[in-house]
Amino acid sequence: MDTKPNKCAVLSQLNDEINHIWPELQHLFYNLHVVSNSKIDEIIVRKEDEDKVLDIESLAVPTFPQPILHVIHQAWQIFDHRIRTNHPLFFGFAPSTAMELSWLGDSIVSAFNAHVGGRVAGSGPCAIENALIQWLASKVGFPLPAGGIFVSGGSVANLSAMVVARDHLLPYRDFSRGMIYASDQAHNSVSKAARILGFPKDILRIIPSDSSFRMHVATLKSMIIADRRKGMIPFLIFATFGTTHTGAIDPIADIAEVARDEGLWLHVDGAYGASAALLDTRPGLTDELQHAHSLSWDAHKWLFQTYGCGILLIKNISLLAASFAVCESGIINHAGRIFDKDCEFWDLGFELTRPSRAMRLWFTMRVLGTKRISQIIEYGLSAAEMVETMLRQFSNWAILSPASLAILCFRYQLVNRNEQQLNKINSEISKKLISDNVAGIFTIQLQGKIAMRMCCITTFRMPKEELGNLIISND
Amino acid sequence: MDTKPNKCAVLSQLNDEINHIWPELQHLFYNLHVVSNSKIDEIIVRKEDEDKVLDIESLAVPTFPQPILHVIHQAWQIFDHRIRTNHPLFFGFAPSTAMELSWLGDSIVSAFNAHVGGRVAGSGPCAIENALIQWLASKVGFPLPAGGIFVSGGSVANLSAMVVARDHLLPYRDFSRGMIYASDQAHNSVSKAARILGFPKDILRIIPSDSSFRMHVATLKSMIIADRRKGMIPFLIFATFGTTHTGAIDPIADIAEVARDEGLWLHVDGAYGASAALLDTRPGLTDELQHAHSLSWDAHKWLFQTYGCGILLIKNISLLAASFAVCESGIINHAGRIFDKDCEFWDLGFELTRPSRAMRLWFTMRVLGTKRISQIIEYGLSAAEMVETMLRQFSNWAILSPASLAILCFRYQLVNRNEQQLNKINSEISKKLISDNVAGIFTIQLQGKIAMRMCCITTFRMPKEELGNLIISND
Repeated sequence: MDTKPNKCAVLSQLNDEINHIWPELQHLFYNLHVVSNSKIDEIIVRKEDEDKVLDIESLAVPTFPQPILHVIHQAWQIFDHRIRTNHPLFFGFAPSTAMELSWLGDSIVSAFNAHVGGRVAGSGPCAIENALIQWLASKVGFPLPAGGIFVSGGSVANLSAMVVARDHLLPYRDFSRGMIYASDQAHNSVSKAARILGFPKDILRIIPSDSSFRMHVATLKSMIIADRRKGMIPFLIFATFGTTHTGAIDPIADIAEVARDEGLWLHVDGAYGASAALLDTRPGLTDELQHAHSLSWDAHKWLFQTYGCGILLIKNISLLAASFAVCESGIINHAGRIFDKDCEFWDLGFELTRPSRAMRLWFTMRVLGTKRISQIIEYGLSAAEMVETMLRQFSNWAILSPASLAILCFRYQLVNRNEQQLNKINSEISKKLISDNVAGIFTIQLQGKIAMRMCCITTFRMPKEELGNLIISND
Repeated sequence: MDTKPNKCAVLSQLNDEINHIWPELQHLFYNLHVVSNSKIDEIIVRKEDEDKVLDIESLAVPTFPQPILHVIHQAWQIFDHRIRTNHPLFFGFAPSTAMELSWLGDSIVSAFNAHVGGRVAGSGPCAIENALIQWLASKVGFPLPAGGIFVSGGSVANLSAMVVARDHLLPYRDFSRGMIYASDQAHNSVSKAARILGFPKDILRIIPSDSSFRMHVATLKSMIIADRRKGMIPFLIFATFGTTHTGAIDPIADIAEVARDEGLWLHVDGAYGASAALLDTRPGLTDELQHAHSLSWDAHKWLFQTYGCGILLIKNISLLAASFAVCESGIINHAGRIFDKDCEFWDLGFELTRPSRAMRLWFTMRVLGTKRISQIIEYGLSAAEMVETMLRQFSNWAILSPASLAILCFRYQLVNRNEQQLNKINSEISKKLISDNVAGIFTIQLQGKIAMRMCCITTFRMPKEELGNLIISND
């Protein structure tokens, strides 16, 4: 039967093709190295176009075999339709401004393709993940027996923390009485996590933030007390270190005091901001993180990694295993190491088979060293501060939230215009900045006002003066 | 202040270093291309060694900056400590026998680093993921409005399906009465998912399998009826297409009839076996999949992708959005397309920010074309059948489960030995095969007997005759 060849002809063919085109593949890697460093003259936001999408979809399915170089060319066309979140002038989202080192690390990780669910399959990369987790935990004041796991991102980290808090503090028979607290600035993965876990909508109490977009602690405290009086079981507070909108830092020490007094779990969502823990320039900035029971941290945000590099840290690692362990014992030995002989990474998270998410970060950080990591993070922080200082020199610009963890929100504000007109003007400025490819600055609504928002962590790709010129030229 | 350089000196330095070592990096990519194709003389299972692990851990944290080539060398040492799951003679797990094309696709994906949460950020790769999902769904008999999403693996796919079934069929106030059914051969991600969702342990009914390791449908039916009589609410059946242990295929059409009669959700775990839907050699083999409401499918198993390439397919995509949507409307329009203007991939799964998991599969399949994909899958199937045929010629070998979806379990069986002795002999054979680097064949316990298990999907990397010689030489 020709469909059952005696040796795998397909693989031989492919090997021949790859060997034949190797000079072109070397050129491909050179081009990828260029791609991974977005250049200032590229189009920042490549928007969807309905016709083009249909064209792209027509490339989707396999039919007849195609030459590798031809398919690479198609991949290039497909990926062209994206936002360059690593462009020096893209300031939206928490941009993944992945460094070339992350790409290089990724390519190495992918070739070895180690299974990092447990040490049986990947003892080398498991050892690195283990030690790197310990080091990151020490940076935020989580000493042993702290630990954690690399996950695909902040949403899964927040969800995992909610599982642990629930298992630790909310008995199953009382699920319908559980209560979770988060500010109105919390990331929407928190409400999503509550929904995934099957909690009813009203389990989540939204605490108003103050004029600095920080959780209002007195309200938190009174809400918890009032809920308890009603017979509810408050068990979890989500605070944020670096909110998505404004980079605001919740008053974590005060919140921790409430959590302690009331016996609640304190999770801090530092998906964006926790990277500031690696700064050597701002003593004390992240000291409050030590009060958390668990912490989310995304390396694909401010540690310059490609997407899918999130971290969950937990002060008492055995509670993570208590929720997720699939091993018989479910018990973790803490004699200075995360694992005992029976427990593995698949006992600490959602997944059994796991790709190595830690090694690309390891690669990047080992090359950079601690001081240079600090310098690149500091660069974004001080860039946002510089933009704020410049804007304050012009009467037509108002700062709606000052530079905090490299995020700044501001507004063009002419006298004699009402709120509606100002909202429209600012929306139009944002649209024009994008359509003219001047800067990827999106708008945001803050307490009813449409503002422009800049997350400045991509700025290490350019001299800061150019950022200043950008602002001045658009006055 | 020297910590706030006026332009980012760190990046300039790195760019200079990378440009300087580019010839060596070209060589690196060549070496990675070799690594991604595991060779027959490599050590299959590189076991942990406590001293070595401490050495590796000492490489974990960043300190002083280090030359890129030096860190690459360290990465090589670290990854050496792993099981080569793509080795032609590794037959354990469901091996990720990733093809070089997947590595190449990964390297491209990583350089572009597109955000595939929604089309705003990554319209190109979103369009491909959308169309590819539709095509895969059509292959298992899920017509529009079917859809789905790429996830990190089977565990997350099974968990997501459990969320959907719960939301669709189990009212919140009745959580404590919900019941889920799976056979004793089901993957342990099913019980893990139930635990993550906070269900008590007794929500999961384990149905015994028959002598062919297939779910016993009469028992399923009677358990559901008995549970209902007790006031419980049966809502979900997990069937398996290709169990982890033996590759057994549950009688899905019969189970679907039970699900239909009793009003339950039928999820099929095809993480391993669903890839058989792309065969053009075995008509009807996967026809029964069409009866499922949802299906897990891992491309990092039998579609030759690197880890982290799972797929969840669902027959009625709007139910996936009903569970996971973060958009205002939560409603999906089905005029021949998955998305309406408000719904995105972040509305269909756990994550908001998402890496592109589909594009490497797209790349591999476009290059291969449908016929060659079928040939490589068929190669593993017929390899297992060939080994079975050979073993049956020798009186000392017993087949404990015949070749099913490329998985075969067998046992060396001398007369006049009791079960305990036979278990010991077979464990020792497995250990010796591994320590002598003859084959990565692990043992498994089947109905109390320790057997050797071969999952033959890696065999496309070698001529089948060599596999035959391997077996004969070890008689």
